[in-house]
Parts: sequence; C-alpha cells; structure tokens
Amino acid sequence: MSARTAIPAVGLTQVRHAAEIIRGTVLRTPIVPSPALSKLAGTSVALKLEILQATRSFKERGAVVKLASLGRRERRAGVIALSAGNHAQAVAYHAARLGIPAVIVMPEHTPFTKVARTEALGARVVLRGADLAQARRATQDIAAAEGLTLVHPYDDPLIIAGQATCGLEMLEDLPELDVLVVPVGGGGLISGIAAAAKALKPGIAVIGVEAIGYASMRHVLGRGAKPKGGETLAEGIAVQEPGRLTRTIIRALVDDILTVDEPAIERAVAHFVESASLVVEGAGSAPLAALLAHPKRFRRKSVGLVVSGGNIDSRLLASILMRGLVRTGRLVRLRTEITDQPGVLARLTRVLGEHGGNIIEIYHQRLFYDVPVKLAEVDVVVETRSAAHVGELLAALEQADFPTRLLSSTALKDG
Amino acid sequence: MSARTAIPAVGLTQVRHAAEIIRGTVLRTPIVPSPALSKLAGTSVALKLEILQATRSFKERGAVVKLASLGRRERRAGVIALSAGNHAQAVAYHAARLGIPAVIVMPEHTPFTKVARTEALGARVVLRGADLAQARRATQDIAAAEGLTLVHPYDDPLIIAGQATCGLEMLEDLPELDVLVVPVGGGGLISGIAAAAKALKPGIAVIGVEAIGYASMRHVLGRGAKPKGGETLAEGIAVQEPGRLTRTIIRALVDDILTVDEPAIERAVAHFVESASLVVEGAGSAPLAALLAHPKRFRRKSVGLVVSGGNIDSRLLASILMRGLVRTGRLVRLRTEITDQPGVLARLTRVLGEHGGNIIEIYHQRLFYDVPVKLAEVDVVVETRSAAHVGELLAALEQADFPTRLLSSTALKDG
Repeated sequence: MSARTAIPAVGLTQVRHAAEIIRGTVLRTPIVPSPALSKLAGTSVALKLEILQATRSFKERGAVVKLASLGRRERRAGVIALSAGNHAQAVAYHAARLGIPAVIVMPEHTPFTKVARTEALGARVVLRGADLAQARRATQDIAAAEGLTLVHPYDDPLIIAGQATCGLEMLEDLPELDVLVVPVGGGGLISGIAAAAKALKPGIAVIGVEAIGYASMRHVLGRGAKPKGGETLAEGIAVQEPGRLTRTIIRALVDDILTVDEPAIERAVAHFVESASLVVEGAGSAPLAALLAHPKRFRRKSVGLVVSGGNIDSRLLASILMRGLVRTGRLVRLRTEITDQPGVLARLTRVLGEHGGNIIEIYHQRLFYDVPVKLAEVDVVVETRSAAHVGELLAALEQADFPTRLLSSTALKDG
Repeated sequence: MSARTAIPAVGLTQVRHAAEIIRGTVLRTPIVPSPALSKLAGTSVALKLEILQATRSFKERGAVVKLASLGRRERRAGVIALSAGNHAQAVAYHAARLGIPAVIVMPEHTPFTKVARTEALGARVVLRGADLAQARRATQDIAAAEGLTLVHPYDDPLIIAGQATCGLEMLEDLPELDVLVVPVGGGGLISGIAAAAKALKPGIAVIGVEAIGYASMRHVLGRGAKPKGGETLAEGIAVQEPGRLTRTIIRALVDDILTVDEPAIERAVAHFVESASLVVEGAGSAPLAALLAHPKRFRRKSVGLVVSGGNIDSRLLASILMRGLVRTGRLVRLRTEITDQPGVLARLTRVLGEHGGNIIEIYHQRLFYDVPVKLAEVDVVVETRSAAHVGELLAALEQADFPTRLLSSTALKDG
C-alpha cells in the first residue's frame, strides 16, 4: 500500500507506550484456561476475558489511548464517535472519567436500550441518519461545526496501539501460546494484536474470524467473495467497510481469516454459558465458533481466544439458551393424536411422566387441526434428558396408542 | 464448644500448606473490580471469580487438599462423596485426574443432567434414598462395605483449609478489602475464608449470607428462627444441618450472617448476567443479593464478593432473564378489547408499532373471554423500552379507543 515496511505505524514501542497509558484505568484482564471448552474443541484453550472490562469489551483500550493523546484545547472542545455498540460505551465511559465532553452519533432507529446505556455513561447521544453512511456524514458535519475530535473505532494508529495491549498481555501471561484467535470487524483489534504478538514471538499464528455475512476484510484482501450482509448475531463485527490502515497491517501480519455461519455463532454463545459460565456476545463468540468448526486446524496447539465483548440483549440470550435445549434434545415439542374423550389427556400425561418426561406446556385445541372430528391433537412441550430419551418417549407413546410426531428440530442422535 | 481456643483445627499454617498443595491444579482465580455492580450497590465491589474453576465452583480447593492427604492404600481403595452438586463434580474431576476411583451418591430422582455431568467426569454415580438422610445412610453403608474414604463436603479440617485458600488469595491480591461477603451452606467456605482472612487482617469483616428458607447456620448459632425450607434458587446452600466444626469456627470468627429472599437472589442472578457478563448460580449470587438488600451496611467499603459457583440450569437461567425483562418493564403482556371486525387488529398493531412497541407474540381468541359476543380480546406480548414506555403505550392505546389492561406484573414506575 505504501513505501513503508511490514508494520506501518504500530510497532512494539507504540504498544508498550499504550500499555503504560492504560495502566490503572483499563483492567488488565485475566487469561484463564478452560478445561471444558478445551475438551469440546479437542485442544488447549485459554480465554482472554475482555468481557470483564467496565463497559464489557476491549474497546476501552484504544479509546483511552486516543483520549490521552488529546491536547488541552481538544479535551475542552470534546470528542465525537459514531457507534451504537461497544465503542460508544468505551468512549462515553472514559471521556466522562477524564472530564471530556463526548457526543455519540447513532443511526436513527437505534434500539432505545443502547441509547439509554450510553447516555447513562454521561455522553450526549445524537440520533442521525437512516443508515450508517448517513450517520457517518452527520458525524463529520457535527465534528466540523462543533470543533470535536473524532475517535474512530479502528482506523487510527493510536486506537490500534491501544487494542494491541490485549495481545501484549496475552503473551506476557502465557508465552507458550501457539495461536491467537481474534474476531475481525473493522480490524482494529486483530491488527493491534498481530503487531504486538508477531513482534514478541514471530512464530505465533494470528487467525481472524469473521461472520460469514460480513467477511469484508477477507474480501478486500482478495481472499473471498463479496459478503452478502443480512441479519447476524455478531453485530459487533458486522462491518461492511473495513479499515484502510488495519487492512495493511492484517495483510502483512495475519495468517488467515476464517468465517463462521450464524448457527455456529449461536452454538458458541450457548457453549460459553453452559461450559464456561460466561456471557459472551455474538462477535466475541466467533473465535470459539471457528475453533469448533475447524478442529483439525487447532489440534494440539495452545490456543488463546480473545473473548472480546459481553454485551448481548437478555431476550436474545434467553432465546439462544432455549433453542440450545431444543437442539440438544433437552426440550422438545410433540404433537400427539388423541381421541376426544374424557380421561384420555390424563392417560397421555401419565405415560410421559412415567417415562421421565417433564411437561412444561400443553396445548389442547381442536378447531384448526387437520384431523377427523372425533380426534383431537395435543401439543406438549416436554423437558427431556437427551436426544436418546426423546426416542424413548416417542416409542412409549406409540406403544400406548398415542401416535406422536416430533415438531421441534431435535436431531435424534446421541445426547 | 471445646477447650480449644478461637480457631480450632484451621490456622494460617494449615491454610498456607493447602495453598501449596493446590498450586497448579486448582485455578488461582482472578479477583476483578466491577464498576457496574459497584454503581448498583453504591459501594466498591470486587468479584472473586470461583466460577472460572474447571468444574465452575470453589469446591475443588477443599477436594484437592483432602485427596492429596490420602495414603497409597486409601487412594487405591477409592473415595466416596454424597452430593448432586458442585462437590460431586469437584471430587469426581480431581479423583479422575489423580487416578483415584470415586463413587458419588445422589438421592434417587436426582435430575438426569446432574448424574450425566458427574459420570462424564469419570465417577461412578449411585442413586440411593428418597431423601438426603437416606442417601447419607447409604453413603456410610457403601463406604464401610467397600472400604472407601469419605470426602465430606464441609465438616473436615482439610476441606476447610482448602476452601480457606480462596480467602488467602483475595487478601494477597487486594489487601485493602474491608469486608468479605460469602455464601453459607454447610459453612466450609466461610469458615475457611474467615480463618485465613482474620489471621491475615484482624480488622476485616467477614459476613455470611444464607437463603432465607435455609438460614440454618444462623439458627444453630442462636441468631435466628428455625428456617422453613422450601424451594430455592440457591440449591448450593440449601443445607438443613450445618457442619459442627464449621459452626464453631463461624461462631468465633464470622461477624454476621445475613439472609436473602428468593426474589432478591433471582434479581442478583439477572444483574450478574446483565451488568457483569457472568453466569452465576443462585448460591453464588446470594452475596450480591445481600449487598443490594443492605446497601447502608456496605457503603464506602471495599467489598469482596465470593462468586462461588456458576452451575445453573439453562432453562432456569432463560426464565430468570425473561422474568427480569418483565419486572423492569422491558417485556409486557397487554390485554386489549377490540370489536370483532376485519381490519381492527391491523389498526391495533399499527398503534403499538407507531409508539415503539415491538410485538413478540399475539393471541387472538374469543371463545373463553368474558366479553360481549361482538367484542373480542387480544393478548399481546410487547417488547418495550422501560416502565415509562409501557405507560405511554397504554395511554396511546386508550386514546385510539382500545381499552387495555396490563397483565404482567410490571411496576409502572421509573424505567
């Protein structure tokens, strides 16, 4: 891209300087082994817990380095950032701490909870633009009109040097790491981590992970087709226009970028809850999803996963957990045909109970089902032990003369 | 209780020895500040993250110290433990690691997932007894018949010394702590922590927390009425017969035991997810519940919360999250009276949409509602922004001639 050599703008000197700046104000997060996820992935997994930061993501690292670089006049005038997510919260939180006024621009129709959360941190939130492009223009306009300094979410050497401290800490704490697996959105986190890690340990592999609908870094580096966008659980890395500076660093230093699909991300979020007691957002779960999707690639390595953020909507999380129970055969919906007579429902529920099925919900209706008028259908939601147990229940119902279909999409293989 | 002095059986020497024994096999868990929970509780909160242990609770500390104390013959014969919870998993995991055969006794009717999880760790699970008393007798019988060493969950100086390492680490990492808040079941964790902490820093306060239905330690120490039992989210501390050794230590060293009710525990579990990205079981959430119930008591202190375990059923967690949304006005169920004509439902849903209500579910039925035959009632589950927003929606519906009642138990006060 330029005449400069491999690592433009961000070297170990900048990273160590950034580490000095954030000391005491950004948490030096722990990196912990996870035997349960290691077993699941068939390798040795350590988790860098950026979810433990005050605003629950790594974004504070870069934001603090950038804010600390401002002169007195810039601080007095204030800063501006375009983000409805973790970057917004990181800038708002640390600007407030430093007494710097902060404006955060979010597109119109941003969910109210995101607005409220950022306002609660002391920032002025401005809703502008029907989409991100319009909001970006509004950000530039407001910045120019009010003389504010823009805090870019990734395409700034100071931001990158800040995010790089995450990689520095990982290798200081666990020098034996062979591979770092890092989510990729705009590319700030991975370019920083790669700059730090490759300087400290040239033999280490740094692997990026993108959501398949937003594999735009892979695309601009000529390693994949133009992504299609769409809905994704990994909002934090759903970036259509990756950084220019970050892509140069990534091209030079990152070994590969993998993609993961939505079901894989969803399963990873559930695994973090069920096997590691951690609430991890979609973007932060992408590295685990990649590990589980490409087990051979990581076998017998010491793998450091960057668990980058923990901001996930509670309703979404609840629904991921319930869907996980359905997927693994611990919750099923059965539709049973019964004769429409008193006592039959009692017999049906007894059969289920005797075979260890715990009834959660039951729907008994006959108007709209496609059955003869003397028959009725009952839908039962049952808590089960495993996919094998579901098979047992179906067999028991069949034997008791209750023809039953499984309505939920449970794979009737092993538990 | 005896002629011995204040700290029977467990002193700093034993605790430091236990710390040596567990080094490298039990995680030295991080203790991290939580600005969000600090703000919520109006004080300074640090979290000791025992949920990061391999089996997701502190129980491994004591189990490892006990297992390490066994002679060659005892190891060959094997160990036995009575538990369906965290103690079972801790013993199973470390016995397997050390090549010691382990039998885990659980009462009959223990949920299958608990059996499966412990078996997966390599233990032989034996289901015996309709209740805990019967299961305890069965445990003694099997231990005698097979020559197994009992690993008691709390009433053993080695177990207590093991749990004490948790307190040792807390004060090593954050010597400025003023108060430690610790869940109390059988009393192993708090008696260990108190022994370590009071020896290192006599001025520190150690406060226990019990679920109100199982405040049996408070009771046996003469500080409260006999608890009533019943259902509790805090299964891990639902102990009816607290330890004899532990109660002696607690009487001597623990400053107070607070109780928390079920709604407080439920809210604390939700707060951990929403404000700290952590999955914490009911027992482990009891200290946060106590902090929020007694804010004055902890104001302007440096408070260390022992986040003791992270094993919680996914369905239960999902339901706690959804109930939290209802409680805080972010999810409501409305019942609206409509005239039974084409187009009316479209108008109703438009009013909701225009005022920012996101419809999640809708039930339109007229057979069973107590309304005139030309009217019908519609139940709508709506995602809302806050309790104030619910009020806005209700007013908007009223104004549009849709008389509406709020069916969910949302407090229509602040958001």
